[in-house]
Amino acid sequence: MTIVTKRLAKLREIMDAYQLDFYLVPSTDPHFGEYVPECWQRRPWISGFTGSAGEVLITKDHAYLWTDGRYYLQVEQQLDSKEYTLMHQNSFTPETELWLSNNCIGKTFGVDPKLISIKRAKFLQMILENNGGKLELIDNNLIDQCRVSLGENLELPKSQAFILEDKYTGESLANKLTWLRNELKTHDTNYIVLSALDEIAWLFNLRGADIDYNPLIISYAIVGTNDTILFVDSAKINSQVKDYLSANGVRVVAYELFADYLQSLSGDFWLDDKTTSYWVYDKLNKNPTNYLEFAPSPIIYKRACKNAVESDGARSAHIKDSVALISFLSWVNKNWTSGIDELSCVKKLAEFRAEQVNLIGQSFNTISGFASNSAVIHYGVTPETNRVIDDSSLYLVDSGGQYLEGTTDVTRTIHLGQPTAEQKRHYTLVLKGHLGLGRTIFPQKTCGEHLDAIARMHLWSEYLNYNHGTGHGVGSCLCVHEGPHKISQVNTGIPLVSGMIVSNEPGFYWQGHYGIRIENLCLVVNAETKEETTSNKHSEYGPFYKFETLTLTPYCKSLIELDMLTNEEKLQIADYYSRIRHTIMPKLPQDVQEWLNEEMDI
Amino acid sequence: MTIVTKRLAKLREIMDAYQLDFYLVPSTDPHFGEYVPECWQRRPWISGFTGSAGEVLITKDHAYLWTDGRYYLQVEQQLDSKEYTLMHQNSFTPETELWLSNNCIGKTFGVDPKLISIKRAKFLQMILENNGGKLELIDNNLIDQCRVSLGENLELPKSQAFILEDKYTGESLANKLTWLRNELKTHDTNYIVLSALDEIAWLFNLRGADIDYNPLIISYAIVGTNDTILFVDSAKINSQVKDYLSANGVRVVAYELFADYLQSLSGDFWLDDKTTSYWVYDKLNKNPTNYLEFAPSPIIYKRACKNAVESDGARSAHIKDSVALISFLSWVNKNWTSGIDELSCVKKLAEFRAEQVNLIGQSFNTISGFASNSAVIHYGVTPETNRVIDDSSLYLVDSGGQYLEGTTDVTRTIHLGQPTAEQKRHYTLVLKGHLGLGRTIFPQKTCGEHLDAIARMHLWSEYLNYNHGTGHGVGSCLCVHEGPHKISQVNTGIPLVSGMIVSNEPGFYWQGHYGIRIENLCLVVNAETKEETTSNKHSEYGPFYKFETLTLTPYCKSLIELDMLTNEEKLQIADYYSRIRHTIMPKLPQDVQEWLNEEMDI
Repeated sequence: MTIVTKRLAKLREIMDAYQLDFYLVPSTDPHFGEYVPECWQRRPWISGFTGSAGEVLITKDHAYLWTDGRYYLQVEQQLDSKEYTLMHQNSFTPETELWLSNNCIGKTFGVDPKLISIKRAKFLQMILENNGGKLELIDNNLIDQCRVSLGENLELPKSQAFILEDKYTGESLANKLTWLRNELKTHDTNYIVLSALDEIAWLFNLRGADIDYNPLIISYAIVGTNDTILFVDSAKINSQVKDYLSANGVRVVAYELFADYLQSLSGDFWLDDKTTSYWVYDKLNKNPTNYLEFAPSPIIYKRACKNAVESDGARSAHIKDSVALISFLSWVNKNWTSGIDELSCVKKLAEFRAEQVNLIGQSFNTISGFASNSAVIHYGVTPETNRVIDDSSLYLVDSGGQYLEGTTDVTRTIHLGQPTAEQKRHYTLVLKGHLGLGRTIFPQKTCGEHLDAIARMHLWSEYLNYNHGTGHGVGSCLCVHEGPHKISQVNTGIPLVSGMIVSNEPGFYWQGHYGIRIENLCLVVNAETKEETTSNKHSEYGPFYKFETLTLTPYCKSLIELDMLTNEEKLQIADYYSRIRHTIMPKLPQDVQEWLNEEMDI
Repeated sequence: MTIVTKRLAKLREIMDAYQLDFYLVPSTDPHFGEYVPECWQRRPWISGFTGSAGEVLITKDHAYLWTDGRYYLQVEQQLDSKEYTLMHQNSFTPETELWLSNNCIGKTFGVDPKLISIKRAKFLQMILENNGGKLELIDNNLIDQCRVSLGENLELPKSQAFILEDKYTGESLANKLTWLRNELKTHDTNYIVLSALDEIAWLFNLRGADIDYNPLIISYAIVGTNDTILFVDSAKINSQVKDYLSANGVRVVAYELFADYLQSLSGDFWLDDKTTSYWVYDKLNKNPTNYLEFAPSPIIYKRACKNAVESDGARSAHIKDSVALISFLSWVNKNWTSGIDELSCVKKLAEFRAEQVNLIGQSFNTISGFASNSAVIHYGVTPETNRVIDDSSLYLVDSGGQYLEGTTDVTRTIHLGQPTAEQKRHYTLVLKGHLGLGRTIFPQKTCGEHLDAIARMHLWSEYLNYNHGTGHGVGSCLCVHEGPHKISQVNTGIPLVSGMIVSNEPGFYWQGHYGIRIENLCLVVNAETKEETTSNKHSEYGPFYKFETLTLTPYCKSLIELDMLTNEEKLQIADYYSRIRHTIMPKLPQDVQEWLNEEMDI
C-alpha cells in the first residue's frame, strides 16, 4: 500500500463520519498568497503532486486532480494513476465545477470554507442545489484531521515578527492607519478586514519569516474607524514589537480568536473578495444588521506606488544585489573549468548575496539552468536534474534578494565559450526588446498591456515569442510578485505611474535546447525634459513617465550580435554601462573589476 | 424672435399637450449609426448646434445642451445663450442623468423610445421613480410634430436600393442567410432583430444612398429560423431587387409596419443592445411568453473578416483610389501657384476619384486643411474657414471613396515649399510610427490595444502624442468606420485576424500652427515565412499575422528627415515605392508619372 493510498483511506474514513460523497482540496491557504507554508500544503500531501497549481476532488472510490499543461509531465511522474485521474485544467474555465455539475446529483460535497472565495462558494452552492445535492462547509479541515490521525501533522510556522523601521518604509504605522481610516470614511464604512499577509505586513510595517521567500507573518487584521486589531500568535511578538503596536493603538489578539471576534462585530465592512475567504464572509454575514461591501483593498494601489524612501531603498538594494551578482558571474567565468553545476551555483550566488548588508533572504527559489534546463521557464534544480555547467551551451540564472531596503529580481543568461550565430541572434532579439521597453517614454494613462508588444516585436518579426508576461510588479522588502500592475497582454486597466516597480524580462525558450531571459527591475519615474524645446513646449499630453533601470549588471558580451543593434541601442548600452562603472565598479575587488571591465568593453 | 426661440415655443406648446415638464432630444436616430439623415437631425434643428455629438433637454422655461470639449468653441458661435445653457459632457459619465437626478422631483420626463438604448431607458426609469417623477415614452416624436406644425418637416430619404453582386461581396445572400440561421440554432433562439443599417446592407448584399457617405438603405430586418423580412419603403425596391429578394425567400414589408409586425411575433429573440432601441425591446416585451436575449450581433465579427473576394476587391479599390490621389497630389504641386484653396482641392480630388470605374461616392466628408486648419483633427472646410494653399505651411488631406469593390480612406500631409527642420522632425516622427506599425508581425490573440504604442513610441520619446486612435476598422463598400476591432488604447478584447481591414494613421497636431497625419489602410494577412529557418522551425507561437498595406501613395519627400530613419525604415519605404512603381505608375499619364518618379526618388 502506497503512502497516498493509506492517506486516502484515512480521509475516506473521516469523509464517512461527515457523510460526505465528495471532498475538495484546493491548493491555496486561508490567506490566498502565492506561497503556501508546508503545514497548509494539503493537496500535495493527499495527492503526491507537488506542482504549484492544481486541486483535488476525492470521492468515495476515486480521486481527481485538475492541473494545467505546465504540469502534465510532472503529474505523470508523481501521481498514482490507480488512485487518481488527471483532469485537464484550461485557464478561465472552472473545470472542477463543470465536472461537478455533471456528477453531483444528490451528492454531499464538503470543502473548507477558509480555502474558497465568496464567489466560488456561491457558485458551488448553486450547482449542488440545482442537482439536489448539498454543500457542506466544514471549518475543521479534513486533511488536517487525517494528518493528526496519522501523526503527520505540522505546526504553523512560528517566526519572530520584527519592525521594518520608517527609514526603510518611509511612512509610519500611525500615518498609514490615519490614511486607511480616511479611506474608510470616504467609503462610508466602519471596518476593513485584511486576510492578505503582504497587505498586513505593509500596513503594520512588520516583517517576519513564516513564508518561504516572503518576509511575512501569518495573521489577520481588522481596522475600524476607532480600533485596530492584529490577530497573530503572541509568541511571534516580542516585547519591542508589542510596545510598538500598543503605542500605535493596535490590539494584539490570538490568531485563533479571529473568527469569534468577527462574529462579535457589527457595522459596515469593506472586503476585498480576491483575498477574503467565504469563511470570513460567512461569519460577518450571520449578523443580519451587517452590511458587506466588496471592493479591491486600497492598500494594493497605494503600496504599488513606492514613496521616496522606498524608491531610494530600491536603488540601494539593487546596488548591493548587483555587486553580488557581478561577483558571482565573474566567479562562474573564472571557475567553471574546475567543475561547477546548477546546484553549486545556487549556493555560491546565495553566498555572494549573504555578504551584503541587510540581506534577510532570497526573494524566490533561484532558477539556475544550463542548456536544456534553461528552456524550462519555472525551472527548479534538484539533485536529479542538476547539470554540470560548461562552455557548450547557455546558462540562465534568475534570482533575487530580500533586503530591508527592498526586493530584487534579476535574470542574466551567459555563454562561457563561443556561442553559435543562432544563439547570438536569439539573445540579441531578446535584448532588443528588453532595451526597447527600457527606454520607452510614455504618457499618463498608459497601462502595461499597452507596452508589452514593445518588448516582443523584434522576436515577433522572426516568428518567435515567449509564453510569459513581460513584467510584474515588485514589493519593498515584500513579495517579488506584487500587483496591481504588470506588463503583459492581460488587460489590467492600471496606468503605470511614478513609484511603481516593474520587471522588464523578455525571453526566448527552445525546448530541449536552451532558454534566454534578460531581466532588470525598473522604477517608473517622471520623465522631464532638461530643456523646453519648441517640440515639448506645445505638448498637451503630459505628464510623461519613463523607466529608471534599478538593476546594474552587464549583459553577456559574447552573446550580443553587434550588427543587429541600432546606434540608439548601442548608445543605450553604453549609458547603462557607464552607470555600472560609476556605481558598482568601486565596490568590487580588483579581480572582479578586471573581469567587469573586460565584459563591458564592447 | 430668433428661429430657435420660435421652434422652442412651438415645442413647449406640444409638451404642454402631453403634460411634460422635460423633453429629451438625443442626437441619434432609430438605427444608431454614425451619420444621421437630415430628417432625423432633431437636436441641431431645435438648438442650432450642428456638432456631431450632443443632446438637448428642454424644460418649460429653459433648455440645456450637453456636449464635449471638442465643440465648446462651436457652441459659443451657434447656441443662443438666452435660451440654452451649455453643459459639459465628460466621456463615460452620464451627465444628463446626473443633472436629472438632482432636478426631477415630481417631474414628467418625455423621450422618443426609438432614440434611447434599452439600458438607458431603464436607468432613466429608475431615476425618475426614485424622485417621484414619471418617464413618458412617446413614439410620436415631438420635434417631428413641431416641424410639421411649422411646415419645416422633411421626408425620409428615398434612394434606390441596388444589389451588390456576389463578384463584389464574395458571398451570396442565400449563403449568408444559411449561416445566420445556423447562428440562431447554435444560440437556441428563433429570431434576430436587426436595426443597424450597415448590418442589414451586409446581410442582404444591398446598397443604397439614404445616408451621406454610407451606401445604406433605411430599413429594419427580422431573420427567423424559417422566414426573413426586410422592412423598407417599397418605393426603394425596383423589380430586379424585388425578384432577387423574393428568390431568396425574403419578404418585403413596409418600413412603417415594423412595430406592428414585432408585436405579432412570439418566441426567443436575439437583440444586440448596442444597436437596438428601447422601442423595439418594448414591443417584443409586451408578449410575456417572449424571451429576449442580449448579445452582440454575429454579423459584426463575420463582416469584419473580409473573404477572399472582398480582400481582392479592397486591393483593386485602393489601386484606383491611389491613381486618383497621386493625380491630385501631382496637380496640387503643379497648380498651387495659380491659386488653389481648401475648397477647390476638395472639388478637384472628387473629380479625380469620379474618373475611376465603379466609384459610387466619397466615404466621408473630405478633410482639406492648410496650416492651422490642418491642426483641427476633424476639420470640415466651409466658405468661412477656407484658406488659400501655398508653400508657407503644411497641407493635410484626408479622404476616401466608396467603390463597389471596397471602401478607401487615406491621409497625406504635404509641403509645397521648404519645410522647417521642426516640421520635418514632426513629420518623420509620425512617419516612423506609421512605418513601425505597418511592418509589425504579430502572433494570434494580439489585439489593437497591444499594438497602438508601436505607432506612438517615437512621438512619445519627444514628449509628443496625438489625441485620437491609431486605427479603425473599415467596411467593404460600407461604413468607413466599422467595428469590432480598432487600434487604440481602448480595450477591445478583439484579436486582429486575417481579413480585417484597419487604418494606420498616427498624427501630430500643433494647435494654431499645423497638423500632420499619415494614413494607409491595411489588410491583416497570414504572415508566412518563405523558407523554414531554424529560428521558426521550433516556434510554437503561430499563426502569425502581418499588415498588407492597401494604400499605394508616396509619402511627402520634402518632409522626410532621412537622418532620422534607420536602414530598416529606408528599406521599408523603398519596398513600398517599388510596389507603387509596379502597380500604379503604368496607370498614370506621362506628366503624373514624372512627378511621381521625382517624389519617390529619395
